[in-house]
Amino acid sequence: VSVRVSPCLLFLHNPFKNIDSMKAETISVGDELLLGLIIDTNSAYLSEKLAAQGITVVRHTVVGDDFDAIVEAVSQAARHADLVIVNGGIGPTVDDVTRQAVSKVAGGELRLDEEWLEIIRGKFRTRNIEMPENNKVQAMLPVNATLLSNPSGTAAGFFVETDGAEIAVFPGVPGELTLMFEQLYLPMLAEKMPAKNVLLTRRLKCYGEPESFINEKIRDYMGAGRNPCVGLLATDAIISVKVTASAPDTHAALHLIDDTMARIRELLGDCVFGEDGDELQDAVARLMVQQKKTLCTAESCTGGMVSERLTEVPGSSAWYLGGAVTYSNEAKTDFLGVPADLIKSRGAVSADVAKAMAEGIRSRMGADYSIAITGIAGPTGGTREKPVGLVFVALSDAAGTDVRQLYLSGSRRQIRDRSAKTALNMLRLKLMQAMPSQNK
Amino acid sequence: VSVRVSPCLLFLHNPFKNIDSMKAETISVGDELLLGLIIDTNSAYLSEKLAAQGITVVRHTVVGDDFDAIVEAVSQAARHADLVIVNGGIGPTVDDVTRQAVSKVAGGELRLDEEWLEIIRGKFRTRNIEMPENNKVQAMLPVNATLLSNPSGTAAGFFVETDGAEIAVFPGVPGELTLMFEQLYLPMLAEKMPAKNVLLTRRLKCYGEPESFINEKIRDYMGAGRNPCVGLLATDAIISVKVTASAPDTHAALHLIDDTMARIRELLGDCVFGEDGDELQDAVARLMVQQKKTLCTAESCTGGMVSERLTEVPGSSAWYLGGAVTYSNEAKTDFLGVPADLIKSRGAVSADVAKAMAEGIRSRMGADYSIAITGIAGPTGGTREKPVGLVFVALSDAAGTDVRQLYLSGSRRQIRDRSAKTALNMLRLKLMQAMPSQNK
Repeated sequence: VSVRVSPCLLFLHNPFKNIDSMKAETISVGDELLLGLIIDTNSAYLSEKLAAQGITVVRHTVVGDDFDAIVEAVSQAARHADLVIVNGGIGPTVDDVTRQAVSKVAGGELRLDEEWLEIIRGKFRTRNIEMPENNKVQAMLPVNATLLSNPSGTAAGFFVETDGAEIAVFPGVPGELTLMFEQLYLPMLAEKMPAKNVLLTRRLKCYGEPESFINEKIRDYMGAGRNPCVGLLATDAIISVKVTASAPDTHAALHLIDDTMARIRELLGDCVFGEDGDELQDAVARLMVQQKKTLCTAESCTGGMVSERLTEVPGSSAWYLGGAVTYSNEAKTDFLGVPADLIKSRGAVSADVAKAMAEGIRSRMGADYSIAITGIAGPTGGTREKPVGLVFVALSDAAGTDVRQLYLSGSRRQIRDRSAKTALNMLRLKLMQAMPSQNK
Repeated sequence: VSVRVSPCLLFLHNPFKNIDSMKAETISVGDELLLGLIIDTNSAYLSEKLAAQGITVVRHTVVGDDFDAIVEAVSQAARHADLVIVNGGIGPTVDDVTRQAVSKVAGGELRLDEEWLEIIRGKFRTRNIEMPENNKVQAMLPVNATLLSNPSGTAAGFFVETDGAEIAVFPGVPGELTLMFEQLYLPMLAEKMPAKNVLLTRRLKCYGEPESFINEKIRDYMGAGRNPCVGLLATDAIISVKVTASAPDTHAALHLIDDTMARIRELLGDCVFGEDGDELQDAVARLMVQQKKTLCTAESCTGGMVSERLTEVPGSSAWYLGGAVTYSNEAKTDFLGVPADLIKSRGAVSADVAKAMAEGIRSRMGADYSIAITGIAGPTGGTREKPVGLVFVALSDAAGTDVRQLYLSGSRRQIRDRSAKTALNMLRLKLMQAMPSQNK
């Protein structure tokens, strides 16, 4: 995934950092992180959750499975922050020393939690395996610590207070961490450290206008020191307008965000296709359902990327009938009825063939709309007249067929991705035009 | 992407950490990282590159766009490590204070690099824009520092020595960082800090056997303290056997790795489909080209996922003819010739329909092989007899058609992904059987 941070993101400094809030640090433990074999996604996850809880994260640290390094990182963090969230290094092997290191910082011995040991034994029993002796260590925690049970694994977490800071320890496996953090720990934390200010972010998703256009349109919202503060992030040609607000509680933060999002939506118009986790296909799906229309596809260079994305949406079988992936010329003729003569005279990558593909699949499947794509995705296959990146996208309905000619740059992956996105966006805009204006 | 770290990864501790090597720390700067809006991928990238250069990374730190925090992190790292790689916070706005902070740690003032300033002006000129005054700061660097030019952006990097450590500063934008690091900085570093020991990792990619099977088979290679050391990582059902070696130079490290990889390949047999960046479709593509065969597809619940993956491989048009995405029953009959009666009597999700789909598309397109998939991806649409996760995968060639019935669990995304992988793997195994044994 190519992520390009726009210069505008530079305005997305955190104008809230001087707010009187609890401070937290995260520490991720694991040699595989320092070897670069695994990317630390846990810190970003924890940071977003803590921000929403009104807790400001001031530092992330990653250290290896090294007793001294963990002791140093944890004790340093405990001096600086009110809350230290540690993850990783609580497996059953001799390499895993996080529990021992945190116990040293907390000034205590380790104790065996008999209850948790029984649960671990049970977990092995259901798999018909005798618990290996070394798993016993996963039921050990500092004497003054409280156990955090692990619904999906054998490594229990725990939290303990020291030096006026709370240190909480979780497994490094993302699925176990998120489950334990959200279901067990966060509710306790919310009670213990009631939010003075929560920090929430929502996103408006845009496609089809250049980033500079969006930047220019919403410049007034992007000044420093505003609340909400607004930033831009471009990922694979999708531009996210991120609106972050600080407020005493979630309700007030969302109110601030929704107000700004509505104004920005107004300014940006039709290039906004959704919010937060939405992709273009989600916007298309909503419009197809609303308008009770059906769709089919004919893809050459994208090889099924459009149909794959459309059918990613649950319930797509209600409006997506199917399609053809016609890589060979014979398939274009046989499946879509594109005249062999036309392919010969204009070439498989041409506006005329794109149009014939779209019209062919639409009449064949009896759908209200059809999409067709033909192009040269590279890295080879380009000529002077028809270079790599030349793509034709056709959109057909009962009123006629539109064809767009694209000159795309980048890798094979990028050319295919942008072709698929252009097609989905053409359909989205067409469906929006067709909508009774009161529902727009 | 669901990444599950297997318990075996716990054996992938770093047995090389006590080797006499140069030590490095990375520092990533940016409020958006601490807000959890962006995941820090730069540290992992830098760590892998540095390990291959024989430099051990001992800590990653992430701090915000905060002068004091950066000064503290950089000066602390410079005391512990021989090399400190800083990224982020060198944009043109007032928020960007990394150059000022590093300059303070290096004990110097900032100077203006007139040459780089001219280059920045030129970059704006080619876009017909006057350089904004605030971009001037991007040509500033500590008086005793050496400039690192930026081929794709306006922010110059630099490196400077202080306290016996080298501090190198790069932009946070991944594309700019990687280009500057690999093309400009790494060659200089290789000369300045000749590798005493390089640390390299290669991967064998496996599919189709459970992780516990693989673990059991290669247990002898996974003990602690070995060189190469071997670990397992499971990502979306693909199991990577990671082989990491430490050696005086790249050649020796690769020799160690290749030897171990060959032995492990022998032990694991046909479940190994490739190495390093390979996906199942790459293995299929190699075999199709070798055997000069052709392929087509008919997909229902995967909606084009198989065809999308196959056509991701450059040159796939030589052997992939195309396919049909037949979501509706009508499309199954019309495009693939599946008898409407059969769909009615057995249901669209049945072994018989999968078989008819595969045979229909194969005869229709005249391909050597065909793949067909029909199933219930959920989250709705399941019944007691045919629950969500029930999928039939058919593989057809001139000799006949095999159908596999799968009971998959997980999300819609996971069920579709596993269905597509099962189909690609069935085809891969079939192609391997068809291969003259001397080439296996």
